[in-house]
Amino acid sequence: MRMYDIISKKQNNIELTEDEIRWMISEYTAGTIPDYQMSAFAMAVYFNGMTKYETAVLTDAMANSGDTLDLSRYGDRSVDKHSTGGIGDKTTIVVAPVVASLGGIVAKMTGRGLGHTGGTADKLESIPGFNIILSEESFLRQVDEIGIAVTAQSGNLAPADKKLYALRDVTATVESTPLIASSIMSKKLASGAHSIVLDVKVGSGSFNKTPEIAVDLAKTMIEIGTSCGRNVTAVLTDMNLPLGKNIGNSLEVQEAIDVLKGSGPSDLKTVCVELASNMLVLSNKWDIDHAREQVNKAIKSGSALQKFREWITAQGGNAECIDDYSLFPNSSVKYEVRAAKTGYISDMNAEKLGLISVALGAGREKKEDNIDFSAGIVLEKKLGDYVNQNDVIAVLHTSSLDKAVAAAKTLLEITVISGKKTDIPPLIYSVLK
Amino acid sequence: MRMYDIISKKQNNIELTEDEIRWMISEYTAGTIPDYQMSAFAMAVYFNGMTKYETAVLTDAMANSGDTLDLSRYGDRSVDKHSTGGIGDKTTIVVAPVVASLGGIVAKMTGRGLGHTGGTADKLESIPGFNIILSEESFLRQVDEIGIAVTAQSGNLAPADKKLYALRDVTATVESTPLIASSIMSKKLASGAHSIVLDVKVGSGSFNKTPEIAVDLAKTMIEIGTSCGRNVTAVLTDMNLPLGKNIGNSLEVQEAIDVLKGSGPSDLKTVCVELASNMLVLSNKWDIDHAREQVNKAIKSGSALQKFREWITAQGGNAECIDDYSLFPNSSVKYEVRAAKTGYISDMNAEKLGLISVALGAGREKKEDNIDFSAGIVLEKKLGDYVNQNDVIAVLHTSSLDKAVAAAKTLLEITVISGKKTDIPPLIYSVLK
Repeated sequence: MRMYDIISKKQNNIELTEDEIRWMISEYTAGTIPDYQMSAFAMAVYFNGMTKYETAVLTDAMANSGDTLDLSRYGDRSVDKHSTGGIGDKTTIVVAPVVASLGGIVAKMTGRGLGHTGGTADKLESIPGFNIILSEESFLRQVDEIGIAVTAQSGNLAPADKKLYALRDVTATVESTPLIASSIMSKKLASGAHSIVLDVKVGSGSFNKTPEIAVDLAKTMIEIGTSCGRNVTAVLTDMNLPLGKNIGNSLEVQEAIDVLKGSGPSDLKTVCVELASNMLVLSNKWDIDHAREQVNKAIKSGSALQKFREWITAQGGNAECIDDYSLFPNSSVKYEVRAAKTGYISDMNAEKLGLISVALGAGREKKEDNIDFSAGIVLEKKLGDYVNQNDVIAVLHTSSLDKAVAAAKTLLEITVISGKKTDIPPLIYSVLK
Repeated sequence: MRMYDIISKKQNNIELTEDEIRWMISEYTAGTIPDYQMSAFAMAVYFNGMTKYETAVLTDAMANSGDTLDLSRYGDRSVDKHSTGGIGDKTTIVVAPVVASLGGIVAKMTGRGLGHTGGTADKLESIPGFNIILSEESFLRQVDEIGIAVTAQSGNLAPADKKLYALRDVTATVESTPLIASSIMSKKLASGAHSIVLDVKVGSGSFNKTPEIAVDLAKTMIEIGTSCGRNVTAVLTDMNLPLGKNIGNSLEVQEAIDVLKGSGPSDLKTVCVELASNMLVLSNKWDIDHAREQVNKAIKSGSALQKFREWITAQGGNAECIDDYSLFPNSSVKYEVRAAKTGYISDMNAEKLGLISVALGAGREKKEDNIDFSAGIVLEKKLGDYVNQNDVIAVLHTSSLDKAVAAAKTLLEITVISGKKTDIPPLIYSVLK
C-alpha cells in the first residue's frame, strides 16, 4: 500500500477501503507516513469529506491506536458524557454524581483545558487534595465501590488522534466534520463506556457557529458510535452565552455544588438535568420523563450531593469544601466591572469571555502554562439582561490588579449596551439519537 | 505573516497578495515553512486553483529563488524551446541548430530524463565526447561564437520549484494547472531567454490526456510569460504516438541527424519545422510563412547540419558521428519483435512504450540510476499501421537477452492488432500566442 494512492483516491472521491484506512493510521502513528503526506490527505478530506463508512473505520482505527479501557464488566450500565467545549461548562461535575447516585456507572476519562475553553480535569483539581491521576487499578476499584471515578486522560489514549489533531491544528484542517467527529469519538471509544451522551454546543462560544453545523456534527458522531456498537445520544445546547455565572476552575466547582444543593443558575441546572436524564435513559433503560423526575429527586433529596461527597473523598479531596467554599483557592484580587451606561446587553461574545478568563489566569494559552485555580469571572449580568449605569456587570478574580484592569477594559469593549432587548437563543435546541 | 493564514485564505478562495506569495516561497526555500504546511497549501490549490495574478507572482518568486541567467546582451534574439515531455521527443537536437543557423540565439538549459520520458541532456551526452556541463563563462562564450550552446540545468536554478515539485510528487498534487505551469515557467524565466516556444504535448504519452487540458495549461503558461515580459508561443502537438521511430538516447540523436540531413520520419520533421519556424517568428521577427521557407532551406542546404557539426565540436564532441553512426554507443543485443497476427495496430500506448524503453536501460526509474545510452526501441510499425503476421514491429536495443525477452513480452501485450483501421490524431493541434 502507498500513502500516495490513498491521497489520490480521496482527491478523486473514491471510497477508501477498511484496510487502507487502518494501514494509514497505523503507519502514521508509527511515524512511517510523514506529516507532509498526512496533511495533504487531511486537506483533501477538508474538500471532499469522508463517507460514513470511512469515518467510522477511521475513528475505530484511531481509538485502537493506543491503550483502551475495558469497561465490559459493567455491561450496558456504563455511561459517559462529552461536551464539544464551551465557556463556563461545569456540567460533568453535576451530572456525574447525579447519574451515579441513581445507579448509572460513571467511569470517565477527561481532559485538561486549552485555549478559551476549560477542562474538567483542571476544575476537579481545584478541589483541595483532589487526585485526578488514578492508576487503572484504583480507578476501576473506585468505580466498583461507589459507581463513579474520573481520571485525566492517560498519555497513550488514541495517540493517532493526538498526532493527527496537532497536525490539523497547524495546517488549517481542523474544520472538517468527519475529522472533528472522528477525533472526539476515537477518544470516547477508547475510554470504554457503553453509552455516550454528547453535549454538542452551538453558538459564538463554540466551534459550531450555527445549529446546522452542530446537527451535522452530532449526526456524524451518532453514526460513528452506533456503527461501533455504542449507544449515543446528542443534546444540542446553546453556547452563545456562557453556562451559569461562573467562569474559572474553583468558581465553576462552587457553582456546580450550588446546583447539587438545589440552587444555582437556572440555565446551568436545566442543561444538567437534560444531560443527566439522557444518560440515565441509556444506562438505566428509563424513559425520559421518569429519568427527569428521578434526577430532580436526587438533587432535592441530597443523594446526588452525598454521592459527590463520597466521590471527592474517594479521590483524596477534602469534601468539607462542599459546605465551606473558603477552603477553595481564593483570589487575592476581586475587581468589579461596572456598566458604562444604561440599557440591554446586546452583545457579549462567549468565546471572548473565555479568553478574558484565560488572561486572568484561569486557563492555558500553551500546553505547558500553569493555571491559577482561583482566577476567573463571576458574571452578574449576561447577554439580554437590563443594566443601569454603574451596575456591577462582573467581578474579576485574579492575582494582580494589573491583570484585572486590563481584563476589565477588554470586558467593557466586548459588552455592547443598547436600547433594544436582544432575543436570547433557546437553551436546548434538540436531542438526537 | 503566518503560513496558517495563507493556507486558510486559499481554502476560502481569497486571492493571496504578492507579499504573501513571495514571503511563502522565500520562507519555504529557506526551510522555515515546513513541508506539512506547504503540502496542505498545494492540496488547497489542487482544489481551488490560483488566479492569473497569483500564478504569475508564484512563478516569478520561484524563478528568482536561486541563480538566474542573464541573456540581456542578446536583446530580443534569444529564444528557448521547452517540451512538456513526451516519448521519442528529440526535437531540441533538430531545432536548436536549425534556428542558430538562421540567426536565432539558442542559449539553452536542459534537463535529464526521469520516468517514462527522456531528457535532452542525456541524449546529447550519448554523442561521444560531448560535454553537457558548461561553466556560465564558457557557455556564454560559445553562444557569442556560434550562436548556440546547451548545458544541463545548474543545481541552483529555481530551487524553490525543485523543492516544491519534489513535495508535490509525493503528495498527489502534481496535477494542478497553475502549479504545473508555474513550475515549467519558473525554470524558463530563470534560464533567461527573451522568447520561448512551448511544445505542449497532448495524448496518452503526455500528462495532458486531452486537448482541453493542454490548451488550459498552454494559456496559463503564455499568461505567466507575458506578464513577466517574455514572448511566448505554444504549439500543441500530439503525443498519442511517439515522435519518430526511435526511442532511447543515441538512437534518438541518430534520428535527429537524419532529419537534419533532410530524411528521417515525416512526423518528426513536421513538428521540428513547426517549432523552429515559431522560434524564428519570435527571435527574427519573421512572418510564419517566411520562417517555414527558411527552415526548410536551412535543412535542404545543409547549413543546419553544419551548425550541428560546429555545436558538437564546440562542446568537445566527435562530430564525425554525424557521418558514421557506428561511433555512437551500440547495444550488444538487438531483438526483433514480430506481429502475432495480421491487421491494424489499434492500440500501442505511448507512455507504456516509454516505460519499456526505461526497462531496456534507456532511462531512469530513480534519479541515481545509470543510463545505457545505446538502449531503446526502434519502432518499425506504429499505431494505425497495417501489419502482416510475423512482420517486425520493433527492434529492441539492450544489453542482455533477458531484458529483451521481458520487454518484447510487454510490447506484444500493449500492442493491440485488430481488423479495423484506427483514426490517427492530428500531429499539430494548434498554435497559441
